[in-house]
Amino acid sequence: MSTIAPPQNPETNPRVKAVFDDIRATRKSDFINNLWYYLAFDAELLETTWRDVKEVMAKQSHLDSLTKELIYAAVSITNSCEYCIHSHTAAARSKGMTDKQYAEFLSIVSLAAKTNHLLNGLKVPIDKEFNHESN
Amino acid sequence: MSTIAPPQNPETNPRVKAVFDDIRATRKSDFINNLWYYLAFDAELLETTWRDVKEVMAKQSHLDSLTKELIYAAVSITNSCEYCIHSHTAAARSKGMTDKQYAEFLSIVSLAAKTNHLLNGLKVPIDKEFNHESN
Amino acid sequence: MSTIAPPQNPETNPRVKAVFDDIRATRKSDFINNLWYYLAFDAELLETTWRDVKEVMAKQSHLDSLTKELIYAAVSITNSCEYCIHSHTAAARSKGMTDKQYAEFLSIVSLAAKTNHLLNGLKVPIDKEFNHESN
Amino acid sequence: MSTIAPPQNPETNPRVKAVFDDIRATRKSDFINNLWYYLAFDAELLETTWRDVKEVMAKQSHLDSLTKELIYAAVSITNSCEYCIHSHTAAARSKGMTDKQYAEFLSIVSLAAKTNHLLNGLKVPIDKEFNHESN
Amino acid sequence: MSTIAPPQNPETNPRVKAVFDDIRATRKSDFINNLWYYLAFDAELLETTWRDVKEVMAKQSHLDSLTKELIYAAVSITNSCEYCIHSHTAAARSKGMTDKQYAEFLSIVSLAAKTNHLLNGLKVPIDKEFNHESN
Amino acid sequence: MSTIAPPQNPETNPRVKAVFDDIRATRKSDFINNLWYYLAFDAELLETTWRDVKEVMAKQSHLDSLTKELIYAAVSITNSCEYCIHSHTAAARSKGMTDKQYAEFLSIVSLAAKTNHLLNGLKVPIDKEFNHESN
Repeated sequence: MSTIAPPQNPETNPRVKAVFDDIRATRKSDFINNLWYYLAFDAELLETTWRDVKEVMAKQSHLDSLTKELIYAAVSITNSCEYCIHSHTAAARSKGMTDKQYAEFLSIVSLAAKTNHLLNGLKVPIDKEFNHESN
Repeated sequence: MSTIAPPQNPETNPRVKAVFDDIRATRKSDFINNLWYYLAFDAELLETTWRDVKEVMAKQSHLDSLTKELIYAAVSITNSCEYCIHSHTAAARSKGMTDKQYAEFLSIVSLAAKTNHLLNGLKVPIDKEFNHESN
Repeated sequence: MSTIAPPQNPETNPRVKAVFDDIRATRKSDFINNLWYYLAFDAELLETTWRDVKEVMAKQSHLDSLTKELIYAAVSITNSCEYCIHSHTAAARSKGMTDKQYAEFLSIVSLAAKTNHLLNGLKVPIDKEFNHESN
Repeated sequence: MSTIAPPQNPETNPRVKAVFDDIRATRKSDFINNLWYYLAFDAELLETTWRDVKEVMAKQSHLDSLTKELIYAAVSITNSCEYCIHSHTAAARSKGMTDKQYAEFLSIVSLAAKTNHLLNGLKVPIDKEFNHESN
Repeated sequence: MSTIAPPQNPETNPRVKAVFDDIRATRKSDFINNLWYYLAFDAELLETTWRDVKEVMAKQSHLDSLTKELIYAAVSITNSCEYCIHSHTAAARSKGMTDKQYAEFLSIVSLAAKTNHLLNGLKVPIDKEFNHESN
Repeated sequence: MSTIAPPQNPETNPRVKAVFDDIRATRKSDFINNLWYYLAFDAELLETTWRDVKEVMAKQSHLDSLTKELIYAAVSITNSCEYCIHSHTAAARSKGMTDKQYAEFLSIVSLAAKTNHLLNGLKVPIDKEFNHESN
């Protein structure tokens, strides 16, 4: 159950159609996932969300595309966003993630959570050596 | 201010010394960061924590070492663990992270947080296409 | 699936009936939502929870009632509480929230999440100008 | 301690200067807070972050400006972002928030957190009446 | 730096004095910790917060007092509330927590965080055997 | 819907069978819950996860077994992990938790969340008296 109803025939709105066309062209696929259908209830929110995602995920970049999906998925797990976990795990697989890599990814995410809670409990002082300005 | 006092001369305890020696050998460095000094208040907690970190982060693996640090840092930011953010950002730099990569990493983490909150608010149904069993 | 079974005929317990009667009178409606039915498994927890909600949400106040629901919904999204997201989004609509306002609300919540994660990563020092005592 | 060093004389970079000039013009103030100085380490990240904030917070909108700051602050508290809590509490005061309103805001945020955790523990089924499509 | 200034001589307000007197009487100690001093900026928020804490933590109960502090501290670590972590770790010590118990507490909290993230990533279906209604 | 498919006949893998056998022996029960079936997609992740859980939860310890489950459940609620909430609430019941204790547990968890958010908003300075080194 969503908090909004997806608009019927959203592409009758030319602003929505322009975004959907760009999604299809960028991804070289006719598949428009539910996020975009539901966001079409507000053309402006749809436009800025797609612009932001395209800007970060689809551009030429300094990190490889699987690494980017894994970072995205790690944040989504920690924020407990079920939709995002599914969409970015699927995206990581489509970019070549193997089961071995997925298991290792999960072991890093869960180890980080473990030491995060351990250190948030202990409140250990931060080493001055971590200050990159000191180097 | 920490919730525990670090033990004085922790290496007089042979279990602590064994862990510290392994940290120095594994990292090829004499630097022992505060996490391990403070954990030395309980030898068992120190041993299992180091074992877990070494197992995941120092082993031969299916992901490159910078990617692993970025995943670790992404979770740490999302869990708001100040110590972990500093230690794993520093570790990423020591593994070659450039300022351009760091800026891109931050743009992915913050974009993920944005769409996590957007989707947690909207509760959009998960596309059946994300089910890898369906493919 | 809930972690408790809702009590059958909870209003046979006079303490539960007193709370349910007050909910109906305060809200001028016969609808008792599931939160209260399930909390009836423990009369004391039901009483204190309703007292707290009534105290904060139903009283004369210094903020308008739509603003209060939006603040409540914003926290609920961030804490990933599915029930609360649905109940307070519905409450905001019942207090007049339009689709345009909902889209703007979502854009603020998700922008906040974005800069929260950006700043939790960067750990920028807090400007002394933010100290209201300095003004 | 930040994870980056703020650039010296950032406005010698014309892209940074353009953003800083727009911040000063939009806010009608010479004060540039630390967030923007530190973000200047990467002109692109600075540009997109400012664009997003300006787009959402400075535009003509369907919610009043104090309500917008309170929503922003509520998310920031829940995400435990210290810088954001300070900057948006200060912004709310500058938009007229009284101590009485601040106390009420805090009572709503903390009540929401209370029922969020209560309901995340109980996992009560969502009432069909909350589905706005059913109305 | 706090977001409010603590009131000077707060006990000149009789509502504040009544709460402070009750804190001293309940705890059999003259020490009033900063939480209450700062909350005194709004007598109503002070009164309801103290009432809630006293109601839950100081009453006759079905759990022993150390267990209650440990549950409180576990939530506070997970929500990354520095003040609460310090106050409830100190309270646990004052109720007899040993270093061995503290180490074990931390190992449970951090293990929970680990499996929480692992399962939030995997989204394993919930066993019907966990439904206590089925038993 | 899970992000992985559980392996068919996982016990044909001797590493998986060894873990499952140890789970059955340790718990004196034939029931293997879904977490372990799904983790069997990667024998190493299964082995280390079971080792960690057994180490912390099944050993001789300094806290009673119900207290340990309540701490685990408190973290799981705060991290919004639905599977973990169900499994550890069920485990607490199997270790004797009564409805009265469950209600009190929920009142502590939700009170903690309330003061966590209140104090994360107020950023009250930490009392020096909380420093156990000062005592």
